Amino acid sequence: MARLQFWFEFASTYSYPAAMRIEAAAKAHAVAVDWRPFLLGPIFASQGWKDSPFNLYPLKGRYMARDLERTCAGLDLPFVMPEPFPQNGLLCARIAAALEGAPRVRFAQAVYALEFGEGRTISDALTAAEALRRAGLDAALVERAEDEDVKAALRASTEEAQRLGVFGAPSFVTDDGELFWGNDRLEDALTWAAKGKL
Amino acid sequence: MARLQFWFEFASTYSYPAAMRIEAAAKAHAVAVDWRPFLLGPIFASQGWKDSPFNLYPLKGRYMARDLERTCAGLDLPFVMPEPFPQNGLLCARIAAALEGAPRVRFAQAVYALEFGEGRTISDALTAAEALRRAGLDAALVERAEDEDVKAALRASTEEAQRLGVFGAPSFVTDDGELFWGNDRLEDALTWAAKGKL
Repeated sequence: MARLQFWFEFASTYSYPAAMRIEAAAKAHAVAVDWRPFLLGPIFASQGWKDSPFNLYPLKGRYMARDLERTCAGLDLPFVMPEPFPQNGLLCARIAAALEGAPRVRFAQAVYALEFGEGRTISDALTAAEALRRAGLDAALVERAEDEDVKAALRASTEEAQRLGVFGAPSFVTDDGELFWGNDRLEDALTWAAKGKL
Repeated sequence: MARLQFWFEFASTYSYPAAMRIEAAAKAHAVAVDWRPFLLGPIFASQGWKDSPFNLYPLKGRYMARDLERTCAGLDLPFVMPEPFPQNGLLCARIAAALEGAPRVRFAQAVYALEFGEGRTISDALTAAEALRRAGLDAALVERAEDEDVKAALRASTEEAQRLGVFGAPSFVTDDGELFWGNDRLEDALTWAAKGKL
């Protein structure tokens, strides 16, 4: 079965619709999705950005908010811009890194639903615990975020993303190394994963 | 008939596939397209950029080149990255501003085909004259670029783009003021122009 890596960052607005629709879209293309949490902060910092480009470039930020509102309405997804923006996704990214397979997927979708569907603060351990519960997992798994092996795994994933050329989220990488950036490239990425061309 | 403004800049890579496919796509949505030339330079400068963001952020630039290669292959469009990048689109933007209706469309498509299909230098008056000829127009129209009324019309268009919130190209604006950015948003823009939602 063809595979596609899905690189997601919890602070990333466009990762939200991508995370909510990728499983159904991938199934339609007969592609298996490998969910890969990572951090954009170190990658943005290497480009000289100390904040989200949506804050650094207000015109782009205003457009993104409206564009996402339209996109989510078109997908029948609730959308609330969380305050502050961007949220700090470190805690949830570590928890996601500690999980595997279907539990990682359910947890990630629960985090996005809380963050962008309800405007909740995802750096709060109570919100992370709520996401674990909604995913049918043990809320005590929040504590895994403090384990050195989990921290190291997330660091290694972020370095791998950088090696693959990832510079934003969501990003998709095919087995033959093609990189696609953005929720709006999901269909192209799945088509390439399945057929090796567009 | 529903209308859609198509804001294009000749230096813009993603404006190329948009310009080549918008007429057929718009016809399928029963939308009439209003082709609007403008300059991104003053808009980028107001954000503190003195060069294309694709040059300022090399990771993004490398991605764009590959992404455009894939996109154009999928559309059966030839693609050559012109040297230097970005090209200076001022001369051709002024000529486009001096034209109207179908001649403006044919000229703009001829410029894009020369620039990104053949890698030609579009700041060269000979290339601009060639685009006019391919569009079935008088090559002497190149001289219109020196007329004050034409220069003023292009300046006014660029200011109008800024007022509409345009910060990149291609951009699409509906009659009810919705802004869509990027070749990959063309279908959304046409859907909105026709139906008032996605």
